[in-house]
Amino acid sequence: MKLLEDAILTRGRVKDGDVLKVDAFLNHQMDVPLINELGREFHRLFGDAGVNKILTIEASGIGIACITAQHFGVPVVFAKKTQSRNIDGPVYTSKVTSFTHQRTYDVIVSQSFLGPSDHVLLIDDFLAKGSALLGLIDLVRQSGASIAGAGICIEKGFDVGGKLVRDTGVRVESLAVIREMRDGQVVFAH
Amino acid sequence: MKLLEDAILTRGRVKDGDVLKVDAFLNHQMDVPLINELGREFHRLFGDAGVNKILTIEASGIGIACITAQHFGVPVVFAKKTQSRNIDGPVYTSKVTSFTHQRTYDVIVSQSFLGPSDHVLLIDDFLAKGSALLGLIDLVRQSGASIAGAGICIEKGFDVGGKLVRDTGVRVESLAVIREMRDGQVVFAH
Repeated sequence: MKLLEDAILTRGRVKDGDVLKVDAFLNHQMDVPLINELGREFHRLFGDAGVNKILTIEASGIGIACITAQHFGVPVVFAKKTQSRNIDGPVYTSKVTSFTHQRTYDVIVSQSFLGPSDHVLLIDDFLAKGSALLGLIDLVRQSGASIAGAGICIEKGFDVGGKLVRDTGVRVESLAVIREMRDGQVVFAH
Repeated sequence: MKLLEDAILTRGRVKDGDVLKVDAFLNHQMDVPLINELGREFHRLFGDAGVNKILTIEASGIGIACITAQHFGVPVVFAKKTQSRNIDGPVYTSKVTSFTHQRTYDVIVSQSFLGPSDHVLLIDDFLAKGSALLGLIDLVRQSGASIAGAGICIEKGFDVGGKLVRDTGVRVESLAVIREMRDGQVVFAH
């Protein structure tokens, strides 16, 4: 998606260790009009898939998921990264490793909000190693819900996550796919 | 706001210890069309205040802030609860105590995304003891930005936070104010 690629090229920064910083518009400061266009594109891609719920994971995914949900007219559920006193009753649980924060979290979703009648679109900001998305897929499978697909803003096409997730049979649509980051420059896969 | 009060009465649950669970529509599963009406109301209240940025805190505030930001046409910045490898450069830091999670966090905002030219609307889902909102106010004051006010979905009017925040001079508008929770019943302040 050219609008997102242009934002990455003009407002993103490449740091050591293949870290792409998009905190100016996507995951710390959020350019809401831009994200609304991403939501519109996710709806163009998945609008006929019968989605009745959007599932994401805190924190960066929540805003993107909520704005995308306005195009679908469906609720959002976000997986929480730690057991909270404020979650009561039975939950689905999986594990997600954050390579950014260098730790593994338990992620949970209340069983009240995901079940066999749900057809779920997964939304997240990044797909790199795939741990977060595989954790969400695990939660959906535990619930008996079905998966319409996964809408990703930025996929690191050189990393393993895209293949790992697609090998589970889940349709993944990434709005920007990075082939490589070379000498601080982002090269997109087209 | 009657729409929110009705949602609290019909879909909220009161737990021991004055805990109000609104995870069916506000902070775990998110009823996006309802939240869009909350955003519209925040814009009715603050639309003429010259807001150019919305500041919230992860995680529950992010979706509400993003949907509200669509009514204002401004970006959202969300304060992060832990130092992340993915934040580089100078940050503003404050401390927030979560009574739900029974711990104190460092909350940070990159100095790149908040400064003296900003006139900020603070958005959060709950106001009870006020720790999160006071932390956000501290971050804004450190940045030299000014504060248009705070838009809160649900204020526990019987708790100390509302007075603590209003005593700082910040205008607080809460869409539902709970006077008491008695025998599992929510009583609103009108």
